[in-house]
Formats: sequence, structure tokens, C-alpha cells
Amino acid sequence: MSEKHLKTGDSLPPYSGKLRLFAMRFCPYAERSVLVLNAKKLAYDLVFIDLDNKPEWIFSFNPKGSVPVLEYEEGKAIFDSTIINVYLDEKYPEVPLQAADPLRRAQDKLLVELFAPAQSAYYTAAFNAQALTPTSAETYHKGLEILQKEIESRGTTYLAGDQPGLIDYTIWPFLERFLALPLLGKTDFAIDQSKYEVLLKYIEAMKTVPAVKSYCLAPETHSKFTESRVKGNPDYNMLDTSDVVCCMRPRKKKE
Amino acid sequence: MSEKHLKTGDSLPPYSGKLRLFAMRFCPYAERSVLVLNAKKLAYDLVFIDLDNKPEWIFSFNPKGSVPVLEYEEGKAIFDSTIINVYLDEKYPEVPLQAADPLRRAQDKLLVELFAPAQSAYYTAAFNAQALTPTSAETYHKGLEILQKEIESRGTTYLAGDQPGLIDYTIWPFLERFLALPLLGKTDFAIDQSKYEVLLKYIEAMKTVPAVKSYCLAPETHSKFTESRVKGNPDYNMLDTSDVVCCMRPRKKKE
Repeated sequence: MSEKHLKTGDSLPPYSGKLRLFAMRFCPYAERSVLVLNAKKLAYDLVFIDLDNKPEWIFSFNPKGSVPVLEYEEGKAIFDSTIINVYLDEKYPEVPLQAADPLRRAQDKLLVELFAPAQSAYYTAAFNAQALTPTSAETYHKGLEILQKEIESRGTTYLAGDQPGLIDYTIWPFLERFLALPLLGKTDFAIDQSKYEVLLKYIEAMKTVPAVKSYCLAPETHSKFTESRVKGNPDYNMLDTSDVVCCMRPRKKKE
Repeated sequence: MSEKHLKTGDSLPPYSGKLRLFAMRFCPYAERSVLVLNAKKLAYDLVFIDLDNKPEWIFSFNPKGSVPVLEYEEGKAIFDSTIINVYLDEKYPEVPLQAADPLRRAQDKLLVELFAPAQSAYYTAAFNAQALTPTSAETYHKGLEILQKEIESRGTTYLAGDQPGLIDYTIWPFLERFLALPLLGKTDFAIDQSKYEVLLKYIEAMKTVPAVKSYCLAPETHSKFTESRVKGNPDYNMLDTSDVVCCMRPRKKKE
């Protein structure tokens, strides 16, 4: 798999017959669906697109042009990470990721909703720092506290239980990116050991989950991409090694 | 049932043991859950609250203080119309309202998402007319066209089939309010017979659905409430007749 992002003018790669996910390598919403596809051990193709110079054909799959988009049959697609993930979980029930109990499913959705303001505060801190107000960091920490309290009260390694589930894969992509904020000079947004012992233990556990491990990026990498985006020239292809020719080996491809 | 809205300082009515929905009589999101409770023939209590002077206890059920909120057990609640409605449908499966097929369920959610910009345009037209731009009416009509096209392509009386389902009860509260826009002087937002024959036929069919009929309000009523809200003094209790004493009968209560 190449980590190169297709852009305006690039052709749509031929459909292989597998599920196909259109994503952007650094998009947390797209990551949610990547993690669910990984966790469910589904075979799929992953195609990255440049969100600043979108290939024309993305609009035939999603009129909004946003990612993630799941092509579930040639030329037929659904979009929105939440919609895609519930669809995948219901359509391929072999590895169930949603909670079995209707009330717990509702509570998981509420947790995502109560955590969402922290995500918005993260976006402001990372990409729109001039709009930061003292309440941004407060909102962010309130979201983290809600999450930590929930992890504590559930008393399991993951939010879903002893194994991670949809709720974990939905929250994770943001935690992964939150860790980059101190590197971007946003020290108010650090997740300190003193205050967040339980949350940090959860973060460490999540990093070892195979579905996460194979896609997760280091804070330094997120920080570097964020800086390029803030400068107005997002380096979508910074991880792409498909064109690297090594002296000793043929063309190296990232898995 | 009284249509009076409880406000700051008012006590929480005693819990009867039934499901209890906290709502606001003119809120389309709250209406979504009322319709689902009605359609599923569930026994429930309905408590209206004044959203400008919220009773303190609403925050113990929902930290956001928004409606609808469903108290599913004494002191325990979930909120957000979408979360509540899926919970009700899964917890009480006797009258199933969601589509049986995972793909159709995903497509129903996408339709709600693609229709949402029309809802935003409606809010602007109804409550914030000074923010109207020429694209507002375009966005609104684009949403209506998407909806009409979908009704046409499904070829059934309701979006869900020969009987209305969750998708119909999710969209309906907005259509009901859209019909008030011409009365508010927003003639660009009229749903004309010439352009919307299929949609208008759908609207007429929805009006006859028992779950809708018992809660639906006339465009004149919505228009009157909207005007009061725009003037900064929302007349939440305009439908309340619980204090009307008739000469010939004891205190009249609306059912």
C-alpha cells in the first residue's frame, strides 16, 4: 500500500472486489473506520485522497467530498465514520464491536457526544491557535475528565470491556492526536500523569491493540503534519515511501 | 396532560414508573422521540420544560440541558433524539421502526444527514432572518429535492415502506415546521405543488399517521410560536389550557 494521496486529475484506481475505504492518512474520522476494518479483520483496500485538491470522483461516492467513504460494492458507497462503522459491525457480525446491551450502546454514544467538545478544543489548539480562549483548555480537560471517570467507573481495561470495542476505536484517534499538542507548544493541553493516571494507563493499553498498533502514528509525526497544515501547505505525502528506491532492494513499499 | 412548561424553581413531578420524556412542545428534536414513543405504543409521561428558564433538575438528567431527555428508570436518563430513538427501538422491539437491512439503515442515516442543511436553512429563515443569504433558500430546496427524489425512488407511501418507520419520524418534525415559513413571510421557502407533487403527497400521507396526528401542530400554530420567540419572549404555554375553567365543566385538561 502506498501512502500517497490521490489528487485532482488522478484516476480512480480499479476496483478489486474488496471493500474500499477512501481516507486521508492524518484524518481522525477516517482512522475510526480503518480501526474498525482492522479489528473486524475484514479485507479492504485503502485509498488516500488529498483533501485540498480532491480527485473529482470522490464526489460521485459522497456529495460532501469528505472522508471516510466506504465503497461497499463497485460504484456504491456510504460515508460518515459513525454510519460506516455501525454498518460494518451489523453487516459483518463475526467480530462484534458494539455493546450487546441497548442501554450500554446508548451510553457509549452519549460518551462520544460528551467527549466531542474536547475534540473541538483540540482542533482549535492545533489548527486555529489564534482563536484559543481560556475556556478552550477548560473544555478540553473537562472532556478528558469525563472520559477518565467513565474508564474508572467501568473498571475494565477498555471502555468496551476486556477487549476493545467500537467505543474505544471511536475515541482513540483523538487521544492519539491530543498527545501531539505539547509538541506544538500547547502545554496547557498536556495529559499529565498526576491528574490522568487512569487515562494514561488506558492510552498505553490502546497502543498495544493490534488494530491500533498497525495504523497509529507517533506524536512527532502528527505534530509535523499539523505544522505543515497550519502553514497552508499540508504535507499529505510525508509518510509515502512508494517512490523511495533503496540501493540494495527493489522499490520499497510500506505495508 | 398539561401543556404547561416547567421552569426554574418548579419541582420535578413525581416519577410514575413509566418512561418519562422531557421535551419542549415546539421542539422538532423532542417531537422525533414523541413520535417514536407513540408509534411503538409505549406508555410514557411527557414533561415540557421552558428552555429559556430551565428547571435546575434537567441538568441532573442531561449535563447539556437540552431536550429531548428520556428518563428510562427513576433518576437515570439518556438524551439526544437519535440516541433515544435507536435505544427505544432496540429495547422495545415489538414494533420495529428501523429498517431490517444494515445497508438500508445506513442509507436512512445518510438521508438524514443530507437533509440536515435544509433544517439549518429553515432555522435561519424562521429565527434569524437577518442572516439569510440567497444560498439559504437554495440549500433548503436542495434538501427538499434530495428528499423528494428518495421518496420517488423508493416508490412506497413512506420512506420506510408501506408503514412509516424511524426515518419518517426523524424527518417529519421539520417538514411540519417548514410549512409555516410562507406564513412568516418567507415565500421563497414555500413547498409548491408544481415542483413538489411527490413530496406534498408524502406530507399528506404523514399527516394521517396516528403517531403524527396526535401531536402535529398546524402551520399557523408554529408560525405564532416562532413569532413570539423571534420577539424574544417565547410563548411556551400558548397551547396550555390546564388553567382554563369552563362555566359548565370543571377545569379542562388537554389530553
